[in-house]
Amino acid sequence: MIIVFKKSATQENIDHLLARVDKLGLKSMVSKGSERTIVGIIGAEDVVRIQPLEVFAGVEQVMSVLAPYKLVSREFKPQDSVIKVKDGVEIGGKKINVIGGPCSIESKESLRAIAIEVKKSGGTILRGGAFKPRTSPYAFQGLGEEGLKFLKDIAIELDLATVTEVMDPRDVGLVAKYADMLQIGARNMQNFNLLKEVGQTKKPIMLKRGLCATIKEWLMSAEYILSEGNFNVILCERGIRTYETETRNTLDLSAIPIVKQKSHLPIIVDPSHAVGKWGLIAPLSKAAIATGADGLMIEVHTNPEEALCDGPQQLLPENFASLMGELEKIAKAIDREL
Amino acid sequence: MIIVFKKSATQENIDHLLARVDKLGLKSMVSKGSERTIVGIIGAEDVVRIQPLEVFAGVEQVMSVLAPYKLVSREFKPQDSVIKVKDGVEIGGKKINVIGGPCSIESKESLRAIAIEVKKSGGTILRGGAFKPRTSPYAFQGLGEEGLKFLKDIAIELDLATVTEVMDPRDVGLVAKYADMLQIGARNMQNFNLLKEVGQTKKPIMLKRGLCATIKEWLMSAEYILSEGNFNVILCERGIRTYETETRNTLDLSAIPIVKQKSHLPIIVDPSHAVGKWGLIAPLSKAAIATGADGLMIEVHTNPEEALCDGPQQLLPENFASLMGELEKIAKAIDREL
Amino acid sequence: MIIVFKKSATQENIDHLLARVDKLGLKSMVSKGSERTIVGIIGAEDVVRIQPLEVFAGVEQVMSVLAPYKLVSREFKPQDSVIKVKDGVEIGGKKINVIGGPCSIESKESLRAIAIEVKKSGGTILRGGAFKPRTSPYAFQGLGEEGLKFLKDIAIELDLATVTEVMDPRDVGLVAKYADMLQIGARNMQNFNLLKEVGQTKKPIMLKRGLCATIKEWLMSAEYILSEGNFNVILCERGIRTYETETRNTLDLSAIPIVKQKSHLPIIVDPSHAVGKWGLIAPLSKAAIATGADGLMIEVHTNPEEALCDGPQQLLPENFASLMGELEKIAKAIDREL
Amino acid sequence: MIIVFKKSATQENIDHLLARVDKLGLKSMVSKGSERTIVGIIGAEDVVRIQPLEVFAGVEQVMSVLAPYKLVSREFKPQDSVIKVKDGVEIGGKKINVIGGPCSIESKESLRAIAIEVKKSGGTILRGGAFKPRTSPYAFQGLGEEGLKFLKDIAIELDLATVTEVMDPRDVGLVAKYADMLQIGARNMQNFNLLKEVGQTKKPIMLKRGLCATIKEWLMSAEYILSEGNFNVILCERGIRTYETETRNTLDLSAIPIVKQKSHLPIIVDPSHAVGKWGLIAPLSKAAIATGADGLMIEVHTNPEEALCDGPQQLLPENFASLMGELEKIAKAIDREL
Repeated sequence: MIIVFKKSATQENIDHLLARVDKLGLKSMVSKGSERTIVGIIGAEDVVRIQPLEVFAGVEQVMSVLAPYKLVSREFKPQDSVIKVKDGVEIGGKKINVIGGPCSIESKESLRAIAIEVKKSGGTILRGGAFKPRTSPYAFQGLGEEGLKFLKDIAIELDLATVTEVMDPRDVGLVAKYADMLQIGARNMQNFNLLKEVGQTKKPIMLKRGLCATIKEWLMSAEYILSEGNFNVILCERGIRTYETETRNTLDLSAIPIVKQKSHLPIIVDPSHAVGKWGLIAPLSKAAIATGADGLMIEVHTNPEEALCDGPQQLLPENFASLMGELEKIAKAIDREL
Repeated sequence: MIIVFKKSATQENIDHLLARVDKLGLKSMVSKGSERTIVGIIGAEDVVRIQPLEVFAGVEQVMSVLAPYKLVSREFKPQDSVIKVKDGVEIGGKKINVIGGPCSIESKESLRAIAIEVKKSGGTILRGGAFKPRTSPYAFQGLGEEGLKFLKDIAIELDLATVTEVMDPRDVGLVAKYADMLQIGARNMQNFNLLKEVGQTKKPIMLKRGLCATIKEWLMSAEYILSEGNFNVILCERGIRTYETETRNTLDLSAIPIVKQKSHLPIIVDPSHAVGKWGLIAPLSKAAIATGADGLMIEVHTNPEEALCDGPQQLLPENFASLMGELEKIAKAIDREL
Repeated sequence: MIIVFKKSATQENIDHLLARVDKLGLKSMVSKGSERTIVGIIGAEDVVRIQPLEVFAGVEQVMSVLAPYKLVSREFKPQDSVIKVKDGVEIGGKKINVIGGPCSIESKESLRAIAIEVKKSGGTILRGGAFKPRTSPYAFQGLGEEGLKFLKDIAIELDLATVTEVMDPRDVGLVAKYADMLQIGARNMQNFNLLKEVGQTKKPIMLKRGLCATIKEWLMSAEYILSEGNFNVILCERGIRTYETETRNTLDLSAIPIVKQKSHLPIIVDPSHAVGKWGLIAPLSKAAIATGADGLMIEVHTNPEEALCDGPQQLLPENFASLMGELEKIAKAIDREL
Repeated sequence: MIIVFKKSATQENIDHLLARVDKLGLKSMVSKGSERTIVGIIGAEDVVRIQPLEVFAGVEQVMSVLAPYKLVSREFKPQDSVIKVKDGVEIGGKKINVIGGPCSIESKESLRAIAIEVKKSGGTILRGGAFKPRTSPYAFQGLGEEGLKFLKDIAIELDLATVTEVMDPRDVGLVAKYADMLQIGARNMQNFNLLKEVGQTKKPIMLKRGLCATIKEWLMSAEYILSEGNFNVILCERGIRTYETETRNTLDLSAIPIVKQKSHLPIIVDPSHAVGKWGLIAPLSKAAIATGADGLMIEVHTNPEEALCDGPQQLLPENFASLMGELEKIAKAIDREL
């Protein structure tokens, strides 16, 4: 932690702060420059971080030196984490997994029809929402437990792993009973009680990046889950909010190499929600793989015209199949498998 | 709802969409321009809004004409809503209410000391967090129910109304037992299950704007609460995330007149969280009042150097007192009271 | 300047950087923490700032301690600058100046009609564009020199000061011949050659904030002008680009107190361009004054329905007159004059 | 153009607007819905676009149906444009071109050393700034004409094409004398006089996206150049400003497929400026190629520690060479050549 004093700071100001640092059991190092005094605090940054040093008289700014997360950091665990979702389905290794399925589960029949196509094209994990976070209280909110049952039944039938969203801490047990992996949606990335709750399960958790979360905040949300004892976290980049209106969100692919530098956790990409237009999903999926993503989540629907949510961003099975073929070539070009 | 077709759209494409509109029991109006065909859909826009019309072949864009919210709209209720928080404390009328208090409740003594100052300077509502949403799992998370008790006791002692945050749908009953008004924090603005839960109480709800929520999304979140039967909603602007780094967030005061145009709900401003620096709170508080805000929420602490959270943005009692004097002059200049 | 090394940095890495610092004639101070080494560089930060220290092996981050601007800083000149635009018209003192006029100069008659109204309501400076930066090459680009002549003639006739935009370094001499103050538009805030050119005149320069400029970048652009010898710079906040679509831009009123803290230069606000809707101009103008702005620039037009640009954001004379009355009350409340 | 009236609009309001539309020689189509009246205007949207219809009494909103650009649109020219930079160097065809070179030209020797490496690894175009737009007036501003001479000499010597930035309309002739392609930098994307000036040459123009430009605005800036008669425009995505601080800017790869849908112009990507950290350049370069970019511009320097600008984002020759090898595999995977 580095404290920069104002030019106008008095010796009294500096001494007052040094006394506090000393009281915290930390060492400080004072450097008097030509224009201002700077104090470096040596020792566990955690202790200082929660001190409101900015309010001390004479202080101009406080600069953090260390990242605020620990368990998620690559310094804590240098090797890539590989998360097992189900026997034979692992995220974070050489194989790139593609999650496919409808935005929301609408009926058992339609889910089965879509799941068959996902499986046929090489998808390994079936997605489908049973609890849907909708901007409007008047929109379709999902089938709830009934949807979860459909998801589980069909996954068993077709030997697919599953992922579905949980929105409420009270539903974590219920969803965990049916799904292989729990999704924390973008709007709940900082729903800390929900994070703690899923942290107490042993399930793989797919943690989506919040709509305007920094990478640091996202990793801190993952830290919440790990700090409860659950290390099975997969990050999912899904676009951030910018001023650009041509796409629903701006997919931030830079996040992939940055996360890989800072953390051992695997990261996948959801281009469907990022851009909101099916015509852009193929090029951005290829880009995601080329950048080093460990997987993709793509919405697939056999009849987008009748979809109960997010129709415009769901791929038809034939487009999904053709995309999978293209992705395989990219995967090979970077020495991975699909 | 207006459907714009691509230049390349065929008559078949247009007929296919018209058939769907017809099936929904709605009227359409086709306008063939020199460059492309446009279809206006007449009738309840709600019915169409949830249809994925963008996926129909030949469609270029779908433009919404009506706002997606109803109960919160000024068209639904032309008069300003005035929300009673406690006998003698109403938000939305001529009187501007100032909420004051610490970021988090640290002890009964410190809370009382601060509350006395808030009251003395003219504050009418006491704030203080008992459940704190913290970016880091290692930061102080609040005193929980004990803090709520302190809040209630001191408010009764000093005859102040109270507001405190609820983060978890499971805690709504508990918090409602102690506080006069429940706060939904920025990070939970789209925690829809929490919104539904507080919608089922009759308590006044202070709904903070999400860190990157549009005004439309914010009003839709209020709609969630009203649609459950609770019309006692007060909006709270607290800054939005932008690229500027001098302030923690960018306070969007334009939101005040816009909300006043579109909705009957009262709106207050939280400059403390918006800017994160106490030196900016006074000028922005004056600006908020001048723009037409119905109230302010300001963090006050008798000893920011020892505060357990957000020290840098908490005003000292003397600064709060002096600010209240300045605000009174602005309130008079716009023919309101403080 | 503070250099934070990676945990994995070697002593060789550190020595290599220290040698460079030494070669630059600067002193360094090494602090070996429990987790990593930090080096503080003491001496003229300017010398180091342009060194690419981030590329040195082992370096994790480089943190700047001092602001990169000098002449515009309050440390350089503690007293507020007061800029004289014309005899009797000074910006930055107790009196708040309001600039009024049409978006673009359309004809001598219409400009005179508007100018009479601006003057009558208490405006002191007449605005009007002769060279217009338009997003589309097919939109009205302004009357050029003819417009400048109209502006000068009418200003003399009515004893008003004038301001108009200059977009091209080749036009600086021409515009300076006719106008009292030159405006650098938001799109040209980092047109460095234009900045240098106006820096070589002695004219007051109104420098608008770029659409996505940080306050630091804005002050650096002002520094360009001052560094050429022209200290007559007035900053103008006009909204920044965010994701919110209800307003054209988001007016950032926090910029006013921040600029006042960091710089001695006066700052005014242009709410018309910020929000793009005339109904929001009055509340935001009041807010700007309450926050401490030294002036306002407001678009006024006698017939917005016929305006050749930006009709929707121009006030009718009667609305302008009524706004001026309201602003006067706010000015008094903060002990200033209008 | 579609005009939506307020619920409260009177018949008089509607008639008044219809009279204006009629006067403009356009047809209108009135649709009275259950809640409000909507008017569609049929005919050349250009004529209406510049009318301030939002200011007419009773109007709630005005929605544009057509894109505001023409010559750059794919509707105007359905086939991809292929731009010849130099004999044997064309951008927009099957071959992907990589531009390499230093941020700024520092000396003839260092430029030659870098150019040799660029050529050896397969780069076809040499970059290097002679006129540098620098945020600070105190930073290195480039060698000017001397630098241009070095660039030309070395390009001839090594048979490379060249690109360099022009910042001032007065320098267009000079720069055009030495370079094969002129770059318009991000800060000058809306320097309309500069756009007009380069539009009057026949040189290929590389137009960088502004730091916070929408894709629509960017295409409008290209339209400025085409409207002056120069159709040789290459777009360059270089990152947009967002709240994320881990990267200098957020590279918006979605822009590639969107530009390809809307325009016939080629598009390349500059990952160096987008992210500002050399460690991220390789993964994002691969992503850009996978998304469909027609080229890349990458900063290369033989000694980044001594670079006079942007050291941290310049690749060492060995890293550039290794990246080129990886890019070739991606290019093949999508059936293109490097």
